[in-house]
Amino acid sequence: MAEPLKIALAGLGTVGVGVIRLIEANAALIARRAGRPLQVTVVSARDRNKPRGVDLSGYAWEDDMVILGERDDVDVVVEMVGGSDGPALALARTTIEAGKGLVTANKAMIAHHGLELAAKAEDKHVALKFEAAVAGGIPVIKALREGTAANQIERVYGILNGTCNYILTVMEDSGRDFADVLTEAQAKGYAEADPAFDIEGTDAAHKLSILAAIAFGSKVDFARVETSGITRLRAADIAQAAALGYVIRLIGMADTGGGLFQRVQPHLVHCDHPLAHVDGATNAVVAEGNFSGRLLFQGAGAGDGPTASAVVADLIDIARGELGAAFSVPVSELEDLPPAATGHRLGRAYLRFMVADRPGVLAEITAALRDAGVSIESLIQKGRAGDAEGGGSEVMVAMVTHEGPESAVSEAIRLLDGSASLSEPPLVLHILDN
Amino acid sequence: MAEPLKIALAGLGTVGVGVIRLIEANAALIARRAGRPLQVTVVSARDRNKPRGVDLSGYAWEDDMVILGERDDVDVVVEMVGGSDGPALALARTTIEAGKGLVTANKAMIAHHGLELAAKAEDKHVALKFEAAVAGGIPVIKALREGTAANQIERVYGILNGTCNYILTVMEDSGRDFADVLTEAQAKGYAEADPAFDIEGTDAAHKLSILAAIAFGSKVDFARVETSGITRLRAADIAQAAALGYVIRLIGMADTGGGLFQRVQPHLVHCDHPLAHVDGATNAVVAEGNFSGRLLFQGAGAGDGPTASAVVADLIDIARGELGAAFSVPVSELEDLPPAATGHRLGRAYLRFMVADRPGVLAEITAALRDAGVSIESLIQKGRAGDAEGGGSEVMVAMVTHEGPESAVSEAIRLLDGSASLSEPPLVLHILDN
Repeated sequence: MAEPLKIALAGLGTVGVGVIRLIEANAALIARRAGRPLQVTVVSARDRNKPRGVDLSGYAWEDDMVILGERDDVDVVVEMVGGSDGPALALARTTIEAGKGLVTANKAMIAHHGLELAAKAEDKHVALKFEAAVAGGIPVIKALREGTAANQIERVYGILNGTCNYILTVMEDSGRDFADVLTEAQAKGYAEADPAFDIEGTDAAHKLSILAAIAFGSKVDFARVETSGITRLRAADIAQAAALGYVIRLIGMADTGGGLFQRVQPHLVHCDHPLAHVDGATNAVVAEGNFSGRLLFQGAGAGDGPTASAVVADLIDIARGELGAAFSVPVSELEDLPPAATGHRLGRAYLRFMVADRPGVLAEITAALRDAGVSIESLIQKGRAGDAEGGGSEVMVAMVTHEGPESAVSEAIRLLDGSASLSEPPLVLHILDN
Repeated sequence: MAEPLKIALAGLGTVGVGVIRLIEANAALIARRAGRPLQVTVVSARDRNKPRGVDLSGYAWEDDMVILGERDDVDVVVEMVGGSDGPALALARTTIEAGKGLVTANKAMIAHHGLELAAKAEDKHVALKFEAAVAGGIPVIKALREGTAANQIERVYGILNGTCNYILTVMEDSGRDFADVLTEAQAKGYAEADPAFDIEGTDAAHKLSILAAIAFGSKVDFARVETSGITRLRAADIAQAAALGYVIRLIGMADTGGGLFQRVQPHLVHCDHPLAHVDGATNAVVAEGNFSGRLLFQGAGAGDGPTASAVVADLIDIARGELGAAFSVPVSELEDLPPAATGHRLGRAYLRFMVADRPGVLAEITAALRDAGVSIESLIQKGRAGDAEGGGSEVMVAMVTHEGPESAVSEAIRLLDGSASLSEPPLVLHILDN
């Protein structure tokens, strides 16, 4: 059997430790499939003495993780440190500069610096791989880079954040409100102590920008992902959606209609759509190719086992000699697509207004919609929701529009801007019927 | 840009023509992703003059398809002829012998002769690829060979035949019976004029044997797939299943519990299982890895576009230089797993008896179940189903067992063998809860 692939592992959190466990547990079958053994030679982390529940005595220790790639006993560095910049980025740069391959699960770093790193990796003829950065254990990067490579991908979208999907599913099942469910999710470990990256949609936006680049052969453009999270959703929104035959999911969606369109937003997903059945912390990605038709890839979006599965798949590819372009085509050939103007996009929308309970409010809202040319398919005004503090009461007005341009809805919202009738800004969610 | 990959195409049915259309339509993006153009240089089929709706004047014509691989203007042969033996196999052998790569959508040939062809391809250091042979446009061969390569796959199963799934879905939606729906499916082109390969489960068994070999690193063993089709299902079975919270799907399932277990059979699938939502001609494959957890891959299982997508993905891999082992590990390292003894397998089952409508029949059945040690969870005796011919009447007795060994159910069926009370052999379907 050929020489082992010698691996340095930087970052020994649960996911880093998961990689060690996987390589140990499945060593024999990995060696058969890779054609040679994978051998972790050296590890590094901030704190050498932290108990991690795994025996590290068989591996060399490196205090300065940034120089891991420069060691003679290393062919590939696995970066599990996290953070878009800082030590992770320094390590990535020095590793590639030293002519070694890099495998990472770091979606933030790839979303911000993936193009720079991929170009450097091409110069040095080394691998840059990040299967674990998107949708955990689902091999969706490989599916887009290779499995659907014959297709023009017309649209790529999916459920990219397990924390949000878990929260939405619990809200749906229990009828409880967002803040309440978030607190429970944090207690159970499904949400971080600081959940902002997840619940504001940033994490999903990182992933979407990576998927879009690979799917469309365009430059990663994280800065232009139109992003909103799930924090404004109420139990009543989910109940309304259910009454209409929909569930609410945080969907990251990208296409190339009139430029690069990238949006992360809660959507109403029709119950016949496969994404409507993706529950809990599960992730799922849909790719629509011009010959393949619609493909769905579903599985665990996080966790040490699934993440390690994706990291080690990348290592096996490298051991087999599969080094291909990180974003499917060389960086110099990635297109620099302008951002899409979204106003002309056609679609249906769910609009929800929290309004003061007094005469004329409904007339004010419907007049604004009429003036903006928005056609209403159905409207529900829900009875008084008494304020828990005992002060006043508000009424929820929810509606679904007929298909029309997004600009019309935006105009209606603008017309209502500053209205004393609204107790909070209107909520606008797009509808995914098919 | 590098030299084109020169392709010979044998077989110009709708799928072969689909490959030509795809390579023409997506030529520019394929060249970018593959690093060089894909160029069809020569084509061959039985009848040169048949109208095919595509201009073939730009390609050389070869009368004797078997020698395509020996031509100087060919790097890879795409075999779209079909049939496990005959011209397809002759072409595959001469192509590899001539040191050229082979891409095929031919599940029957790979199920029967895949090991021989893979061994020859390894000897000659050429590619043998068959992504299109399983689950149409879904890149599931790649997912198992590469995407989940870090895992011990504990179970692989799915909906592998679009014709059967289409028929079952229509039966479910319409309440109509099998024969009626089959006739309609044939008229609509969803089922072949001779549908036996599909409806008897053979096609799904071909695909399952290929998936199992890749998932478990074992030799393809099509002969030992326990196979039954959907022909015995009645509308009443589907209605009973629905009442219990299940749908019926033809599932191919493989694991390595006590040997190589491979079974194609209609299953009751719990409505919470992702496969329960796979409707129409769609295919879906689930792979359960010891680190990845459950992964689901879903998409179009047939059709010229999806099949062409998979064929050209293989060609792009070859153009990129990715030639890896056809079954993920070299043929010499594939394990020769004995077939699993199924009697000890634990599970729940759906049993359905068509019985004469007379006293004592239910007692006879339940006594046999008791004597065999089968515990009944629920039982429904459905009222008289008058014979359409007007002669006599029969009653349907359907039940679901508690979890128990399969051998107990088999023993109960054996005890009832030859009973004058049964108007047809009992139907036994396994239950997929999770």
